[in-house]
Amino acid sequence: MEIARSLQNVPSSYIREILSAASDPKVISLAGGLPDPSTFPIELMRPTFEGLCDTPEVFQYGTTAGYTPLLAFLRDYLRLPESHAAVVCTGSQQGLDLVARAYINPGDKVAMEAPSYLGAMQVFGLVGANMITVSQVESGPDLLQLEQCFKTEKPKMFYAVPDFHNPTGVCWTLETRRKVAELCIQYDVAFIEDAPYRELRFSGEALPLVSSFCPEHSIVFRSFSKIASPGLRIGVVTGKAAYIEPIVKIKQGADLHSSIPMQAALLGLLKHQDFDAHLDKVKALYQSRYQTLYTALESHIPKSCAVKPVDGGMFVWVNIPECDTFELAKVLLSKGVAVVPSPVFYPDANGQPAALRLNFTNSSPEELVKAVKIFSEVIENFS
Amino acid sequence: MEIARSLQNVPSSYIREILSAASDPKVISLAGGLPDPSTFPIELMRPTFEGLCDTPEVFQYGTTAGYTPLLAFLRDYLRLPESHAAVVCTGSQQGLDLVARAYINPGDKVAMEAPSYLGAMQVFGLVGANMITVSQVESGPDLLQLEQCFKTEKPKMFYAVPDFHNPTGVCWTLETRRKVAELCIQYDVAFIEDAPYRELRFSGEALPLVSSFCPEHSIVFRSFSKIASPGLRIGVVTGKAAYIEPIVKIKQGADLHSSIPMQAALLGLLKHQDFDAHLDKVKALYQSRYQTLYTALESHIPKSCAVKPVDGGMFVWVNIPECDTFELAKVLLSKGVAVVPSPVFYPDANGQPAALRLNFTNSSPEELVKAVKIFSEVIENFS
Repeated sequence: MEIARSLQNVPSSYIREILSAASDPKVISLAGGLPDPSTFPIELMRPTFEGLCDTPEVFQYGTTAGYTPLLAFLRDYLRLPESHAAVVCTGSQQGLDLVARAYINPGDKVAMEAPSYLGAMQVFGLVGANMITVSQVESGPDLLQLEQCFKTEKPKMFYAVPDFHNPTGVCWTLETRRKVAELCIQYDVAFIEDAPYRELRFSGEALPLVSSFCPEHSIVFRSFSKIASPGLRIGVVTGKAAYIEPIVKIKQGADLHSSIPMQAALLGLLKHQDFDAHLDKVKALYQSRYQTLYTALESHIPKSCAVKPVDGGMFVWVNIPECDTFELAKVLLSKGVAVVPSPVFYPDANGQPAALRLNFTNSSPEELVKAVKIFSEVIENFS
Repeated sequence: MEIARSLQNVPSSYIREILSAASDPKVISLAGGLPDPSTFPIELMRPTFEGLCDTPEVFQYGTTAGYTPLLAFLRDYLRLPESHAAVVCTGSQQGLDLVARAYINPGDKVAMEAPSYLGAMQVFGLVGANMITVSQVESGPDLLQLEQCFKTEKPKMFYAVPDFHNPTGVCWTLETRRKVAELCIQYDVAFIEDAPYRELRFSGEALPLVSSFCPEHSIVFRSFSKIASPGLRIGVVTGKAAYIEPIVKIKQGADLHSSIPMQAALLGLLKHQDFDAHLDKVKALYQSRYQTLYTALESHIPKSCAVKPVDGGMFVWVNIPECDTFELAKVLLSKGVAVVPSPVFYPDANGQPAALRLNFTNSSPEELVKAVKIFSEVIENFS
């Protein structure tokens, strides 16, 4: 049976391949985007997990939008305006997929920063979107380019990860947030805000969601994979009710609804009195990991490389001298270090600046330092 | 933001509306397809649920195809041939959606029986499939029509529910199973076997899966919603590895993977020594509910109606005199009985034979008898 044309356009995932190679316990993997399992708040979830069998309603079919007590809690917790709605998804990745399916016709234009999140490019590719990229600078997207893009290309939506971007770690400035929201309103472009790393800020002050400046022109994805547990597969999509309703309609066909015991488990966790203290612990751990990595990079990497500090998230982006980054990643893997080369983060992999994404959340301090030493030595001698 | 064209083709779900009206506790609902919550094997799942917090690996990201111990168990449990693979989905509904997305281009032809499962028509509609129907007779699809359809229309796949069909309750004969498999091989049509009710046989002998006669030309969906719990949202799709691989690729973009604690919970249940005894209890309960409904129908419905006995599943299909079935369903609802009118089960709702689908698994014997009395009286006087 021949596969659908839409799937033929999706390249086999390099990430999947490198992650599978990186699962070798002898490899230090800075390639993935995995939280440290020691951060999973299992003890805070235990009472709910142990009580699930005494709440029989979680075992029946439920409503597509989500488990009612969780939806009610999220309305307060996320301070949703009266006119907004939420739909619980099987991870925020499903939210992305549903938004793409609900709104994008083949050929419709979607603006995004370059580089960008691989999983977003996958779902937009599957619906046949025409992905238009705007360069990312230190403060966020290049605003002149963005306005030009809105003006001439008239994209339907602008997809972005403003907090601790994957792969670069960039966090948009307040000014950029305001300006992007303004442009989205002015040019009638929906702002699709993906915020999986937002809670992982370990320095500097939290900035408002971009969508808080254009609440009627935006959809927000929130993930609980980094602050609770990815295995649960629970995320939430919010926006004005008229934006959410078509998403619910697609979700009904896609899986009827997400697992209810998992929604109940998440609710129990979010309501736990120690949840905030848990978040503080996660952030402290990741800050120390990041500092170890950053300090090691500053001491060891060749002068020809450049690394920007980050205030949170899970990744550091290292610009390196022009080279075949895939080949470099392969050599690094043979030396026991897995990283992801920059071209995979662009809709068009050709001719992109050479860089590597390093994850710092799931390796020990010793591994991080060892990886940097190997990495620096290989780059020094790589041409 | 304008919704995608594919979504514009999906009519708002009548079922969703009637189910929401039917949730009024004063209404006896024979409209849904809900298992009786008293059948949920919560006590058999309790040890696994209570132990999940001691298996921390279920909280991390997992592989897209599913939780490895569950996949290993299913290989034996489902007696999969060496060359076959499985992918765990967020309910078998997701399996359907993924198969449609992996294989169907807009305009591709999908054959199915008429009437057919509403959720299948939804997902095939979303990918723009051209749904070609073949009449259903007592033994399954009309074989002459089916061969004609394969010959002249050359559909890519034939989607069917051979065991206790939704909505009619029809179970295909052995002869029909063999013949359909033969035709699928002969005309190179993939057979998509949806088997959510297969384990709910309460009389007669179990028949082989249709796909067992064409294992290299088929994909099978299995649901655990009727024999375990729908709330878990775990189903499984199996078929030859070459058929499953594209499904996994779509699933990676769709939700990365399904909830791992729920997969572990299902595994614990399937391995429980009392699981078979649990199945026997479920079947005995549904058999007695069915007998109550059937006996009441035989005693009370007007002679102008016809009802066929079933050997399992969750539904009975009642043919009624030609009338506006939507209007009839509305009148019945006003009298406190919810049912689903036949036209919603056809890709083309116009000009279809008048009938009603009655569910017998989630109402008490008293409710079933009361509903039949009201139903019979209303039909008698309806024109």
